[in-house]
Amino acid sequence: MESGTVRSVTRRGFLYRAAAVGGTGLLLNAMNAWGMGIASTMAGPPVLSGSGKGKSVVILGAGLAGLTAAYELNKLGYRVQVLEARGFAGGRCQTARKGFELTELGGETQRCTFDDGQYINHGPWRIPLHHQSTLHYTRLFDVPLEVMVNDNDHAFVYLENGGPLSKQRLRPAQVKADLRGHVAELLAKSVQDHLLDKQLSADDQRALLDYLAHEGQLSAGELRYKGRTGRGFAVNPGAGMNPGPGTPSDPLGFSELLASGVGKVYSAVQDFPMQNTMFQPVGGMDQIPKAFEKRVGRFIRYHAEVQAIRHGEKNVTVAFKDSASGKAQTVSADYCVCTLPLSVLRMVDTDFSDRFKGAIKAVAYAPVGKIGLQMKRRFWEEDEQIYGGHVLTDIPGINTISLPSSGWQKKKGVLLGYYNYQSAAIETSALSPAERAEFALAAGEKIFPAYRESFDSAFSVAWHRVQYNLGGWAEWTDESRKAAYPLLLEGEGRVLLAGEHLSYLTGWQAGAIESAWQQLARLHERASA
Amino acid sequence: MESGTVRSVTRRGFLYRAAAVGGTGLLLNAMNAWGMGIASTMAGPPVLSGSGKGKSVVILGAGLAGLTAAYELNKLGYRVQVLEARGFAGGRCQTARKGFELTELGGETQRCTFDDGQYINHGPWRIPLHHQSTLHYTRLFDVPLEVMVNDNDHAFVYLENGGPLSKQRLRPAQVKADLRGHVAELLAKSVQDHLLDKQLSADDQRALLDYLAHEGQLSAGELRYKGRTGRGFAVNPGAGMNPGPGTPSDPLGFSELLASGVGKVYSAVQDFPMQNTMFQPVGGMDQIPKAFEKRVGRFIRYHAEVQAIRHGEKNVTVAFKDSASGKAQTVSADYCVCTLPLSVLRMVDTDFSDRFKGAIKAVAYAPVGKIGLQMKRRFWEEDEQIYGGHVLTDIPGINTISLPSSGWQKKKGVLLGYYNYQSAAIETSALSPAERAEFALAAGEKIFPAYRESFDSAFSVAWHRVQYNLGGWAEWTDESRKAAYPLLLEGEGRVLLAGEHLSYLTGWQAGAIESAWQQLARLHERASA
Repeated sequence: MESGTVRSVTRRGFLYRAAAVGGTGLLLNAMNAWGMGIASTMAGPPVLSGSGKGKSVVILGAGLAGLTAAYELNKLGYRVQVLEARGFAGGRCQTARKGFELTELGGETQRCTFDDGQYINHGPWRIPLHHQSTLHYTRLFDVPLEVMVNDNDHAFVYLENGGPLSKQRLRPAQVKADLRGHVAELLAKSVQDHLLDKQLSADDQRALLDYLAHEGQLSAGELRYKGRTGRGFAVNPGAGMNPGPGTPSDPLGFSELLASGVGKVYSAVQDFPMQNTMFQPVGGMDQIPKAFEKRVGRFIRYHAEVQAIRHGEKNVTVAFKDSASGKAQTVSADYCVCTLPLSVLRMVDTDFSDRFKGAIKAVAYAPVGKIGLQMKRRFWEEDEQIYGGHVLTDIPGINTISLPSSGWQKKKGVLLGYYNYQSAAIETSALSPAERAEFALAAGEKIFPAYRESFDSAFSVAWHRVQYNLGGWAEWTDESRKAAYPLLLEGEGRVLLAGEHLSYLTGWQAGAIESAWQQLARLHERASA
Repeated sequence: MESGTVRSVTRRGFLYRAAAVGGTGLLLNAMNAWGMGIASTMAGPPVLSGSGKGKSVVILGAGLAGLTAAYELNKLGYRVQVLEARGFAGGRCQTARKGFELTELGGETQRCTFDDGQYINHGPWRIPLHHQSTLHYTRLFDVPLEVMVNDNDHAFVYLENGGPLSKQRLRPAQVKADLRGHVAELLAKSVQDHLLDKQLSADDQRALLDYLAHEGQLSAGELRYKGRTGRGFAVNPGAGMNPGPGTPSDPLGFSELLASGVGKVYSAVQDFPMQNTMFQPVGGMDQIPKAFEKRVGRFIRYHAEVQAIRHGEKNVTVAFKDSASGKAQTVSADYCVCTLPLSVLRMVDTDFSDRFKGAIKAVAYAPVGKIGLQMKRRFWEEDEQIYGGHVLTDIPGINTISLPSSGWQKKKGVLLGYYNYQSAAIETSALSPAERAEFALAAGEKIFPAYRESFDSAFSVAWHRVQYNLGGWAEWTDESRKAAYPLLLEGEGRVLLAGEHLSYLTGWQAGAIESAWQQLARLHERASA
């Protein structure tokens, strides 16, 4: 979650204000992402000359950053070895499908019981068009992509505290059409009444009226907003004589729309990282680490829990425990790229300087929760004609109910029942898996009548309770960005750090990849010196 | 193209006005559809009691209407036979891929030379979420769907007559962010300056300012629009120290935006039938008729050109010519469902009453042209980060350059080089296939530097020159809707008509299907009487 810019701070400020005002945990469209970072800037790995031949690198963690480092450093000639605590690669990039197991700290083991072919991406779940670094590898490794529907003007918005529009299932198309229509009418009226003669030239006024008439689809001549086809029909047109041409349904009133606050759920355009076209790999986000694994899997030592890091003038030694056998071992290399989340690294025994250790501790990690609910029937498609996208709500702890962008028109589907953050995530994470499912169902059935009766099984995660992550992503503040970030970027001795936390794209796979690119260039520079 | 509503007429009026003013053939977003009809109203075929056992129906044409009629009437127990002039089913629902042949009237034969796996849907190409009738059959027949990207805020808009913004590649995200931002600022200023104290209550003013600040992402306090992340960055944020947090790029000026007219290319919301989620069958639109063919193909007589229709008290006799052997034959049945386009039917020898014949002749058909261009390289993705969607332009005769929504990140792709209509379609259709490709390339290279050098091969169609269609779709006027439409819906004797032309969803597959549903109910009612 990026907070380094004035704009983001303002935005976040607004979000919390909205939550405070509404007495709810409503997060806005812009926020229900796997992070709030912005667009990636690097479209490909750094082009480096020379070779790493004869030099070795131990890489800690086989998440996207570790995999990227392993792949690129190996290509450069380095001897690489990756230590990964889990039995699979990907880090937070996980897909839960039948048989997938997760045991949160102090929690019971969940074993996913979804049907074959059903899954939830409970880590990163979307790749926006700007993330050219992530798209670099999907292209290079031929990972098939499909569109992830991130905007759907027909997915409901449902506010419990929406004033006169409370507890109604509104379609964003209605909200956008009516609010922009009313605004266009109001401004057009002001121009017609010569209220803006001082502000606007006659030419601008003419052009503005022309634009407003189109933007708001105002009635010809008098320029009034009376609804439009884009908001839907009372009766739809079809074949034969009846029904004939449809008439648009009645617009929502300007005052009630304003009083409801629903206009603040959407905005003129999506924030940059949330814009379409948005992708997901066919079959699950873990197709990306699986593609890496095919290429660098032979360098990965699984079930290797890092215990200690010692670095000297000549090399780095990492002690690890084989979590299967319990046996302790060490590995030495010329360099180390450590991609462990700072939340985990701060608990590893290292001989880093106190200053460096302090910097590692300076960064908070976001509590984040998600739940996947397998439904027996795709009632959102069949009953409501909602195909993908997000149902946004202020029901506490839910934020979004997101509908799957794959398996269109099939029988079953897995939807995202909540995606919460901060205090809401902490609260739901205190629940047992079964209680979390009940929590999600109790909310969802307020919006969808068929929600509870269609429920099959659930799989949830609270990332702050996952042993090898201890949080969703790094949460920089202005202060920690200033003090700790540059220090961490430099690394210490022969140890360099990489991961989403060392980017301005925190919480995104692109951040992990670009961080690895940036740090392996630094490593190569040092090694070549 | 639907013109039966005041709203549509207004809209079309605007389109022609825009074209006249711009001196161009610019068609707007709302129009670059396979028709302008609205949403379908029937979600499934009519539920009919009784049986058609012992009764026969001859169906003319194996397009979507004919296929639907054959499938449903057969299910009801009727003995059905379908006469189809072409060697395949689908009517206008065609997909051109390697080996596909098309000979327009008076034209040379085109044989598609796209690579394996490449194709263009040169007939209908999108299925909006509301077309539940089309989606009924994709679901029933298990035709896999994928998202058709119909909205892409990153596909360019390029105006040759865009005043101060002429010949610039603008991104819709910029245009929408800036125009709505400027409008929000202007209205906020008016509220702050107490210009709207008479129109709005104090509460409404407060709520409006709050909404405008969000909608336009105005600066806190002074409420000014200074750009936003949603319009993009001058420098993108990434990993490491440099670049740091991005600053939004500078907004386009309000006056130049207004003077350019670009604000009229987009609108507050898409018109109803153009809204997301939009689908296409995986592998080509012809997967739909192919799915029907699997189920009713045994009833279809291919290469059967209808020559004459005679109907009496007891039955209907249809004379047809086998286009392969040249042999004339006849078939008789208790009833006839004729789905031939009216443009074709008017040339068939029938014994319909003069009044009915007059009604058939009363309806004009739209000249429509499309061209698919196979490109050696997906430069729109690789160079411009445009993944699907439509590049809208006022370059004469082009209207839209639409990028494919399949084969993401592969090497090659087929884009739609133009989609023109009316006079523009008539003009380009006069060109040879090679000249049409050159026409498309000359336009496209103004927008994409790599356009011409990437060109592989083309496949074009001018629907008004296609023998068995003679037009893209029926073009009703208010008068013909009133006079001819009810007459045609009634049919004559034992002959009933069906097709997109007998719906308020002209130009859409949903119109053909719902018309068939509506007419087969009528047929069954008559047969059961």
